[in-house]
Amino acid sequence: MSEALCLHSYWRSSAAYRVRIGLNLKGLRYEIIPVHLLRDGGEQRKPAFAEANPQKLVPVLQHGKRMLRQSLAILEYIDEVWPETPLLPATARDRQRVRALAQVVACDVHPLNNLRVIQYFEHEWNVPQPERDAWVRHWIEEGFEAFETMLQNHPATGDFCDGHAPSLADCCLVPQVYNARRFGVDLTPYPTIVRIEQACLALPAFDAARPERQPDAPG
Amino acid sequence: MSEALCLHSYWRSSAAYRVRIGLNLKGLRYEIIPVHLLRDGGEQRKPAFAEANPQKLVPVLQHGKRMLRQSLAILEYIDEVWPETPLLPATARDRQRVRALAQVVACDVHPLNNLRVIQYFEHEWNVPQPERDAWVRHWIEEGFEAFETMLQNHPATGDFCDGHAPSLADCCLVPQVYNARRFGVDLTPYPTIVRIEQACLALPAFDAARPERQPDAPG
Repeated sequence: MSEALCLHSYWRSSAAYRVRIGLNLKGLRYEIIPVHLLRDGGEQRKPAFAEANPQKLVPVLQHGKRMLRQSLAILEYIDEVWPETPLLPATARDRQRVRALAQVVACDVHPLNNLRVIQYFEHEWNVPQPERDAWVRHWIEEGFEAFETMLQNHPATGDFCDGHAPSLADCCLVPQVYNARRFGVDLTPYPTIVRIEQACLALPAFDAARPERQPDAPG
Repeated sequence: MSEALCLHSYWRSSAAYRVRIGLNLKGLRYEIIPVHLLRDGGEQRKPAFAEANPQKLVPVLQHGKRMLRQSLAILEYIDEVWPETPLLPATARDRQRVRALAQVVACDVHPLNNLRVIQYFEHEWNVPQPERDAWVRHWIEEGFEAFETMLQNHPATGDFCDGHAPSLADCCLVPQVYNARRFGVDLTPYPTIVRIEQACLALPAFDAARPERQPDAPG
């Protein structure tokens, strides 16, 4: 698997952030191809990007000639092709829990707060910014309340969401906490989430994936 | 794995519908525990359901004493524990594609149109029904446009989303087409989606999972 890896990414996209973490945890080299989601109506909506992803969304991981879409499916692929430093635990039962945690964020929080959704409110319904921001916070708080409970109630929770190494769940959680801070969510009710986020960000793989470390981040 | 399987389900929940299809494809016996999402403010929000799922969402698959949450994570679990009649193809590359198709629906269409989201618009923003319905159709059309392109552009597409047997992608697609019809989406632009939906519904596993066949469906 010596084919080149290129990640179509935007510094502030939390789905791209997940994949950057996964690639870094595996120690893989990859080129970042920045896709500016706001400039000029959004580069992801240009015909040039349609071959990369008919969904007009980042991230896309290009592996040789293959275009891989959907961040969780990309992370599972990375984990299967490069099995060292696994992103999923060893048993079906534990994998189920880690995937479910990842999906709390990736299915039930993030898609509701994605750029295209906020733009719909702004352009179709004229929802004012304070109400749009309250919407964003609402779904983060709903999701984090469940996520925190699922961590606190389970013996598998360790330094990270599952035991003592980062997993798919941590790849999703850390970017979502970044968004929560950005929108001013009070994180006091989620002590386990914040503790795990801090443990993750202390690792070079997570640190290098941070939005502000990306080549397309504003200077 | 002779422990009993119980599915906390609602007849019209498309996430529960996915899991019913998966269980049926595996030929597994399971008991349906109906959770009425509308009655009395929603049974999923009662304290009695919190142990089953802190997210207050269906489906939950109970396997012995384990509570398994998140439909895609449940389907992956079923596929790992009962590997016969696989829901995922044999290679990492093909699995990536099938998971990505499933996630187009499960991450980028369905969560935006979920009951709790529509209720937020109704109760917090007083969005009238015609605009709520237009919102639902908008995200289905966006998702289906990409899904159709991803099917048409790929040689792996067969009678089903991947070749000649149903997969995780079909488990997600068929319930989403059910929702599309319910909300009056014009399906003419998506001939491949409709062809695959019809092939699926001709199979007993899909037919028995239909909303109207469920014990909690209105008479």
